[in-house]
Amino acid sequence: MFPLDPVFALHRGGKMEIASTVPVRNADDLSLAYTPGVAEVCTAIAENPDLVHDYTWRSQVVAVVTDGTSVLGLGDIGPEASLPVMEGKAILFKQFGGVDAVPIALACTGVDEIVETVVRLAPSFGGVNLEDISAPRCFEIERQLKERLDIPVFHDDQHGTAVVTLAALRNACTLTGRTLGELRAVIAGAGAAGVAIARILVEAGIGDVAVTDRNGVVHAARQDLNPIKRELVSYTNKAGLSGSLESALAGADVFIGVSGGTVAESAVATMAPGAFIFAMANPTPEIHPEVAHKYATVVATGRSDFPNQINNVLAFPGIFAGALQVRASAITEGMKLAAAEALAAVVAAELSPSCVIPSPFDARVAPAVTAAVAAAARAEGVARR
Amino acid sequence: MFPLDPVFALHRGGKMEIASTVPVRNADDLSLAYTPGVAEVCTAIAENPDLVHDYTWRSQVVAVVTDGTSVLGLGDIGPEASLPVMEGKAILFKQFGGVDAVPIALACTGVDEIVETVVRLAPSFGGVNLEDISAPRCFEIERQLKERLDIPVFHDDQHGTAVVTLAALRNACTLTGRTLGELRAVIAGAGAAGVAIARILVEAGIGDVAVTDRNGVVHAARQDLNPIKRELVSYTNKAGLSGSLESALAGADVFIGVSGGTVAESAVATMAPGAFIFAMANPTPEIHPEVAHKYATVVATGRSDFPNQINNVLAFPGIFAGALQVRASAITEGMKLAAAEALAAVVAAELSPSCVIPSPFDARVAPAVTAAVAAAARAEGVARR
Repeated sequence: MFPLDPVFALHRGGKMEIASTVPVRNADDLSLAYTPGVAEVCTAIAENPDLVHDYTWRSQVVAVVTDGTSVLGLGDIGPEASLPVMEGKAILFKQFGGVDAVPIALACTGVDEIVETVVRLAPSFGGVNLEDISAPRCFEIERQLKERLDIPVFHDDQHGTAVVTLAALRNACTLTGRTLGELRAVIAGAGAAGVAIARILVEAGIGDVAVTDRNGVVHAARQDLNPIKRELVSYTNKAGLSGSLESALAGADVFIGVSGGTVAESAVATMAPGAFIFAMANPTPEIHPEVAHKYATVVATGRSDFPNQINNVLAFPGIFAGALQVRASAITEGMKLAAAEALAAVVAAELSPSCVIPSPFDARVAPAVTAAVAAAARAEGVARR
Repeated sequence: MFPLDPVFALHRGGKMEIASTVPVRNADDLSLAYTPGVAEVCTAIAENPDLVHDYTWRSQVVAVVTDGTSVLGLGDIGPEASLPVMEGKAILFKQFGGVDAVPIALACTGVDEIVETVVRLAPSFGGVNLEDISAPRCFEIERQLKERLDIPVFHDDQHGTAVVTLAALRNACTLTGRTLGELRAVIAGAGAAGVAIARILVEAGIGDVAVTDRNGVVHAARQDLNPIKRELVSYTNKAGLSGSLESALAGADVFIGVSGGTVAESAVATMAPGAFIFAMANPTPEIHPEVAHKYATVVATGRSDFPNQINNVLAFPGIFAGALQVRASAITEGMKLAAAEALAAVVAAELSPSCVIPSPFDARVAPAVTAAVAAAARAEGVARR
């Protein structure tokens, strides 16, 4: 089927394979890599469990776990149909971070089922990358897994996006001589990405940030908030805004779109002078970059065909590579902030309105993020070597 | 640690990695292998689930699932310590069958927990190879998984061993002008391998077979039998033997050892003339080959340093490769018998007492087993393409 479509042609047979890193050419090889030699290694690990990190691939392999409920912009398409994305993620892990990754698409969607399953799988993996699990379940799944596992657990749709967004915003500030503390931001979208971006911006010292969902600004008086949005109220929207996304934009310094919706130009026109507009919906940005440029000094999108692409691949390979390098027991807020700083610093010497974030193919990115995350893990006391 | 030991040196960092099979060199590559292109493939699979086999690696990847309760001869060493064996298995799958395999060592040992976990993982895999799970749980786990999944489920410690044993026994018969139907066999060991060997020998038409455990021959009057051994009674030991392994050997034509124990030479001496002795315990055969040769025409072991090594690697790569090639919904008894026939046939033209089974490195083996298993799957109506 689809033989002439280059996407389908490329996907035929999948995008990944297992490779042996040791020779198995003859009986001598076999006796080292398999029986009887392997028994020595098993025995050593049974006696000293830490050795599993030295003598198996566990410390370099991440499970890319999904339930297929929120895949790209396609929604709940199920585990099988999510596999092409998970394989794509896996090859990006390898290409950009040197990290091995295995797609694990689960045939269950309950929070407890997913958590229990991942806990049972954990002895085989050095880390868990949660992927394309719909909100608000994704928050609770991540929270429980972080509590129960002593290996890095990271929901990329939340934290990868948040790290890259913060890095771009830092550089937009540097470029224009502003500070995060003087900015008021509006985030369109209160799903995985929106909530995580709000959190990291607050941790990084943003002046104020309001988050909007389809019912407008998330604020204390709303009766329709789930627990996650209720929690948002406690650390966002100091200005006490209510009402629509459009009304919140009046006088705002930053727009961050992770909603998939669109924003009218008339609302964009009410933003403060010199605004930053990050319209990250794919494939259709909330505000078209050409329109955004009429009102903003820095414009970013999620697309590769415009400047300043906010792409998670700038973050997750290096974050996991750094965490695995020092055998971190978790990925802490400090490690994420360090990743954002390091990512921003890569293009510090070449900042311009069309370059506040590196290209995904900038070879400096992954080593910089890896080193910063490893150092932060040590500083935060979660490194185990 | 252990820097000078060649086994540990080889195992440092593990024995396997993930490799991409598609290029990711630039933005164009990324837009095909990942967003936005990948969404087309996801959408196509969501609309037609069968396409997952064409456009992901699912149909070529097997989960090597263990709970670490019965690893080699080491016993219950837990999931982490079992990983070197699972990695070894994975690289043998690739090397000999071209099949990708992922080690999944589980942090749970209950039958229901393991079954439920594997069912949840199944959307990511084309097959399940159960490994080193202790008896009798392994039988029930396999039974339930076969019932619930429509992909091949195969407990290699049972069926891999059984297939290779049958192949060697077939060739021993051919070599000596005998038939299976005229043979009385004794199997020492009623665990995973012993039970599966008894079953396949009966299916293949053995004259009679008695199975022994630490309490002697399994027979109807015993009150200490678990359900699996109780079931054995119904199709083994037509002669109605009772008593010890040693007493059962008197006049027997075949000894098959999968027990890890040892057998006294005085008992071996009571076997029928021209016996076949397969003493497969590792590293110490139940009967040393030098002793066995005094009484037997054909001697096999599990060791690579003696002739006629009964090695599962002769079976599982080709069995899974054949099953995956035709997208079989199961691995049936007919497919296992076909694998044994094909394996035996590889050395049909060069039979000798020291060659009743090919070497693990005989390049003819995997293609022959693969083709035979694929054909048998078609004949049995479980092939889906």
